[in-house]
Amino acid sequence: MPPLPPTPARRVLCLAGSLRRDSWNRRLLHAAIDQAPSTLALTVYTDFAAVPLFDEDLEQLDPAGPVGVQALRAAMAAADGLVVATPEYNHALPGVLKNALDWLSRESPLGEVLVDKPVAVLGASAGPWGTRLAQASLRQVLHACGALVMPAPTLFMANAAAHFDGHGTLTDDAGAQALQRFMRAFEQWVERVAPATAAASMRRHG
Amino acid sequence: MPPLPPTPARRVLCLAGSLRRDSWNRRLLHAAIDQAPSTLALTVYTDFAAVPLFDEDLEQLDPAGPVGVQALRAAMAAADGLVVATPEYNHALPGVLKNALDWLSRESPLGEVLVDKPVAVLGASAGPWGTRLAQASLRQVLHACGALVMPAPTLFMANAAAHFDGHGTLTDDAGAQALQRFMRAFEQWVERVAPATAAASMRRHG
Repeated sequence: MPPLPPTPARRVLCLAGSLRRDSWNRRLLHAAIDQAPSTLALTVYTDFAAVPLFDEDLEQLDPAGPVGVQALRAAMAAADGLVVATPEYNHALPGVLKNALDWLSRESPLGEVLVDKPVAVLGASAGPWGTRLAQASLRQVLHACGALVMPAPTLFMANAAAHFDGHGTLTDDAGAQALQRFMRAFEQWVERVAPATAAASMRRHG
Repeated sequence: MPPLPPTPARRVLCLAGSLRRDSWNRRLLHAAIDQAPSTLALTVYTDFAAVPLFDEDLEQLDPAGPVGVQALRAAMAAADGLVVATPEYNHALPGVLKNALDWLSRESPLGEVLVDKPVAVLGASAGPWGTRLAQASLRQVLHACGALVMPAPTLFMANAAAHFDGHGTLTDDAGAQALQRFMRAFEQWVERVAPATAAASMRRHG
């Protein structure tokens, strides 16, 4: 029997839930990418600030939405999965993140891009609570959008400054191991809930 | 004894939680204003679209925030109370509304303008659920912001199209009566929780 061809990687889009350049959650995403299995091809979405405030009147003018929405929607449609690292603002997910999800939840020429999408949620906070309420609210919203949110493991990083060095690099082994477990679990979650299409079957069986 | 001077009206800012021009919640706000007691001076905030996406880096550049934020924050600081009519997007408050509250929750040259602010929450939906989940999430966020949210009565308007005519005018008596009770209760809530300053005392006692 000839050797099996290599399994194509699952494409995973990664979003940090705030715009701040040095956000803990952007650092957490990059640390998660460092720990992810090679079967996941992970990309951090960097043009989040180009997504304008949701306005149904804009959608009436053009069902595809503004240019910044089209780009995010296309990236989401092309992805096999989504990882969201969210900060907590006022006991909930940031408005910026909710606004992007409000756009993505809508019917569009690319379809409803969050429906049946495997999603992992994690988060880091400077304080002691580790974004617990933000993640709970984000899960509820993603559920409403029809996404398939990985139920476990969860990952709440508290006291973020203690986990990264001045360059934003993760420095603690326990954190790295938790991220490795998290990303391996997400790989399995994506395989488990992926649609049973010919393409997906090809990915799984080579 | 000379007659008491007239009691100055309480200034109440009104926000609709979405940008759509013909939103049910904007109509609901105007209907609420029609039913409000004359001791409340109500103003609908119309420049909500000028509030940009929250970005802590922008705040670092200028603690007062972008111009659109400054205007909203000044209006909020000058108000004795706030009425928010929210639609429901994906089982929660809209990202647009959360984004504005994220800005308003921050320390600024005008202070933390939502702390101790009396707030009433209501909402209308085209469908059968009347924004119940949106209002629950909005209350949680307002609580986190330090606002004083009126606990009762609640007002959930379902099947909004059945309550308004083609011009956006409320047409049903039961709805008008519910709004009248709601706004009278809010007037009492504002009086009850208003800070006991000299100015407030002057308002109450003439």
